[in-house]
Formats: sequence, C-alpha cells, structure tokens
Amino acid sequence: MPPIQSVRWSANERGVRIIDQRLLPNDFVERDLTTLDDVCDAIQTLAVRGAPAIGICGAIGLCVALSDQAQLGRGEFLVRARSAAHTISSTRPTAVNLSWALERVLGRGERTAGESVAVLQAMCDEATAILVEDRAMCRRIGEAGASLIADGSRILTHCNAGALATGGIGTALAPVYVAASEGKNVCVLATETRPLLQGSRLTAWELTRAGIPVTVITDSAAAARMRAGEVDLCIVGADRVVANGDVANKVGTYSLAVLAHHHNIPFYVAMPSSTIDPSLESGTDITIEERDPREVSTLGDRRVTAEHAAVGNAAFDVTPAELITAFITDQGMVLPPYHFK
Amino acid sequence: MPPIQSVRWSANERGVRIIDQRLLPNDFVERDLTTLDDVCDAIQTLAVRGAPAIGICGAIGLCVALSDQAQLGRGEFLVRARSAAHTISSTRPTAVNLSWALERVLGRGERTAGESVAVLQAMCDEATAILVEDRAMCRRIGEAGASLIADGSRILTHCNAGALATGGIGTALAPVYVAASEGKNVCVLATETRPLLQGSRLTAWELTRAGIPVTVITDSAAAARMRAGEVDLCIVGADRVVANGDVANKVGTYSLAVLAHHHNIPFYVAMPSSTIDPSLESGTDITIEERDPREVSTLGDRRVTAEHAAVGNAAFDVTPAELITAFITDQGMVLPPYHFK
Repeated sequence: MPPIQSVRWSANERGVRIIDQRLLPNDFVERDLTTLDDVCDAIQTLAVRGAPAIGICGAIGLCVALSDQAQLGRGEFLVRARSAAHTISSTRPTAVNLSWALERVLGRGERTAGESVAVLQAMCDEATAILVEDRAMCRRIGEAGASLIADGSRILTHCNAGALATGGIGTALAPVYVAASEGKNVCVLATETRPLLQGSRLTAWELTRAGIPVTVITDSAAAARMRAGEVDLCIVGADRVVANGDVANKVGTYSLAVLAHHHNIPFYVAMPSSTIDPSLESGTDITIEERDPREVSTLGDRRVTAEHAAVGNAAFDVTPAELITAFITDQGMVLPPYHFK
Repeated sequence: MPPIQSVRWSANERGVRIIDQRLLPNDFVERDLTTLDDVCDAIQTLAVRGAPAIGICGAIGLCVALSDQAQLGRGEFLVRARSAAHTISSTRPTAVNLSWALERVLGRGERTAGESVAVLQAMCDEATAILVEDRAMCRRIGEAGASLIADGSRILTHCNAGALATGGIGTALAPVYVAASEGKNVCVLATETRPLLQGSRLTAWELTRAGIPVTVITDSAAAARMRAGEVDLCIVGADRVVANGDVANKVGTYSLAVLAHHHNIPFYVAMPSSTIDPSLESGTDITIEERDPREVSTLGDRRVTAEHAAVGNAAFDVTPAELITAFITDQGMVLPPYHFK
C-alpha cells in the first residue's frame, strides 16, 4: 500500500484533508479545506486532481461547507445545500465524477427524513461511502491486474492514474502496488507526460514514496526503451471508455499503444466501471478538449515557442480498441472483443 | 530562402558572426566572436549548435583567433595555430564536424608556402570554402527533396535540422524551404523535442521568420495527428548514418518512424554525405550519449521530477533502415536497399 491518501476527512471531521498536488514533488503539504471557498479553490487550481479524487473532494467538501448550517430549518438547509453543490460543480464543469458525487450526496440528503442535523449526517455518511467505495474499487482493479505482473516485471505507464488521482491506490498503478505488496520485484518506467508533467511530478513521487523503483523518461524515449526490451507491459488509465472499447486518455496514450503493438508488448487499460460511457458508439464520437496553448509554449513565465508559431494542445487522444490487450476493471479483466454497456 | 544565416564571417572579416541560439526565440541577437575565448565559449554554451554550424564556427573562429599573430615567424605561427585548434576542438569533443573542419583549415595552412600572412590567408580561404560548400550541400539536399513535397503538403519534423544548424538552409528543412520558394503551399508540424525543446524554440522560430506556417505540438501528440490524416510526410535529420542505413538521431526519431510506418506515411531522412559512417555495420554498434538527467528533471531552476526517482536522458535513438522510406542527400535521393560506403 502506498503511504499516502490524496483526499479524505480531516482528523476532526470538520474539513477535507488533501495533499496539495500543486506543490509536488518539491513539498509534501497536507491541507484541511474547511469552507466552500477552500474546496472550490482547491479543485479549480488542481491542488486536487484526478476524476475520482475530485469527486470525493466535492462530496466531503459539500458536507464540510454545510456543517455550520444545521441549525437552519430543513427546507432552508436543503436550498443552501443545492446552491453549494452547484458552486462546487461549476469549478470543473466537464468532470463527470464531480457532479455525479455531488448529486449522490444531495439525493441522499433529500431522501432522509427529519431535521437538518439528521439530513447532514446522512449526507456525511454518503460522502464517506463514496470514498470507501472508491478505495475498494481501486483495490479490486489492483487485484485483477496484479496477476499480469510477474516477478521482475518492468511496467511502463503514462501520466498519473495512481493514488494521487483517487481515494485509494489508483487505477493504472493499483496492480503495481498490489504486486509489490505480494513481494514481487517490480519497476516502473514513467513517461514525463508533457505538457503538465504529471508522470515526472506525481507518478514518480508517489511510487518513490511507496518504495517502488521508478525511472522517468521523456515521452518520446519510450520507443527506444521498448525496442531495447526494457518494457514487459504497459498499463495506463482512462478518462472515458466507449461502447466499442475505444479509449480517450491523456494525449500520448495512443502513441504508446501503437509503439507497444509494434514491439509485441501487452497494452492494458485500467479503469473503474464508472468510466464507461455506453452512450457513445466509438472513439470518433468523443470530443477532445483543446487546452490553453500556453501549457506548451511557456515554461513558468518564460516563452519557449517562437511568437508567431501556432501551438496545438489537445489534452487527450483516442486509442482504438484493437490496440488494447485487455481492460483491468473493478469487475475483473475484460478481454476482446469489447462490447461495453 | 530563409532570411537568416546562423554562422558566417562578420562584416569586417575580423570575427565570426553568429546568431546567439541561447536567446531564441525571445531575442534575435547576432554576435561577433573576435577572440579564441569568444569562439570556445559560444560553442561550449550552445550559442551555436548543429554539427555543420559548429564546424563552420570553429573553422572561421580559428582564423579569427590567429588574425593578430601574422607578424610571427611561420614556424611559431603554425605552433600557435595547432594549439588554438586543439583548444577549440576540446569544447565539443564528440562533434565530428568540428575536428574535421579544424583539421582541414590547419592542413591547408601547413601545405601553404610562404610567410605567416600567406599561411593565414590560405586558412581563411579554406574556412570560407567550408562555409560555401556547406551552403551548396544544403541547397542540393533541398532540391533533391523538394520534389517529394506536393502543393499543400503537411510535413512533420523533429528537433532542429534547419538553417540554424548549418551554414545554409538546413538539412531536414532544406526541402521545405526550396518547395516554398517554388511557390508551393507547405506547412510544418514541429514536435517540441524534449528535453531541450529545439523544435519549439528553434524550428518554429526560423520557419515563422521565413513566412512558413508552423504548428508546434508536444512529442507525444504526433501519433494522433497522423491518425487524423494531418501529416503527409515526415522529414528528419541525422547525426550518424551507418553502413546498413540505420540512423542515429535526436531521441524520439525512432518513435516517429514507427508511428509513420503504422499510418503508412513516408518517412525521410535528410543528410549530407559527410554524416555517413561506413565504419559501423549497423545501428547496434552506435554508442548512444546519455546526457545530464537535469535536462529532464528540472525546468530552469525548479525541480520537476520526484527526488528519488531515476531519470533516463538518452540524447539519441536508433531508427532501423527498414523504417526509412528514402534518404535525401546532397548527392540525390538514396532508395533501399541501403549499402552506404
């Protein structure tokens, strides 16, 4: 088990305790978010990131924000709750997990009989349930995937789909943590993941902290490592999986999938069932977010790209199902042909 | 023709005029190097870079460093000349072009009869010849490759093998410049090229300055661009080409070659004949330089990689000959099967 917990209740249960990911890898700082503003600011500024982690932060954060309102009448309390949930949800409007978790906590409150104190308690219980379920889901993904990892395996991953992105031991990194806890020697090759360097900053940090050897390489160095026989398998996360098994994930995932295919290296996608979006038939239906070009064209305050050059910054790419050896899910391994519902 | 000249004689012929590439893309500064220290410092700190450009800088720089020594007797002058050449050569000991150009200038001086003034004049002529030949070589590569570029072509390149790296219009970018000068509409997709960002900083700068549209993308975004049908051909440079046609070039070249192959996109390597090293039979014989890990693990003064993580920073990779559609050389196109001598 990694010795970190990226998001949880604070010790006195009056706040959300998060690891401030903006300060990693240089400073390990845990912060307690105790107000609505704190929670919104942390999500908006990526102090907490990763879809499951954001959902948990929002769910607990909603309860925290309402903790001094329980003296209100039930009707007024629920109006305030819905308003606070809307405010939190607006910070990352595209994060499905966030609105899903907030709705779940709100709905539990609305269905609970009694005065505000009882309603708030039920909402807290629901937020806790979301956290507990997420931990269990990560654990099941880890157990399903650990059998793929032989003693001595060298695993390539991309971006960060680890403990920092979830309430538990991650998705793509969960099998690595479980295999290591079973006593297997494993080592990870982490692509730095331009432009935001989640592999270099976050994946390398949480793995070294857990005592698992990790080597960071530039994204374009993965191919030569594969050719040199230094990669036994690849495991990546997923932002969305559609009906035919096509996967949207951090840009560069498709590149690694093609390279793995070329070198006959298994390529696995780890994800909770909640990542499946059966409303879309294939990857061509997925809209790819184009992010601020300054993520590519500047380093800190310094411009690195020539002034009149165009800059492309698609945040995700789509990997077609035929390049995916199998999915590692909280409901076990899913093998091709894929038909997700 | 691009409106830049990365290295040449200064106006009064008493210095080497270079574009200071350390300041690009933010500041376009030309500097005249007038002493031995100036020349060594510029090469060592990558103010001038690119194997052909370094060779020219060294050749002219040697003459410049000796310009106030011509009152010496011939014997003493030649001793000083060899010593200065040795000093310059030591700045980048692995750059073959640098020692080759210095030897050529020195040899010409030693073979020239007469007093120091005549010897120095012959050395200056030889340095000029190296520059003139390099320009002509770039031009011939450009003309050989321009026929591959149809009107409207979208060309992907990696790193910088352009005018900034040579005395002329570059190697990989030469066909682009020639095609554009023929009135063809062309646009370039430039991978940023981690870790040192030569694509983002240099290739984008020289192309925009020449009025050629360029879009910078992260290295790992190239695959999705290929899949979307946005790349018609790839042209890259080469650091070394061995007998069987295997190519060592900037890390990430092999990755792009595999991706181009997967998407049925032609993949060309542009290079002067001097890049051929027939002493090595295949790419497995090439030693790959491992550079300072801080190029990957820090941005400016800031550490971005977790402290106890290992960092890999191989500067080059090897692309096997079978992934190379053809070579574009100063002696015309070279098609497979390759047998370089």
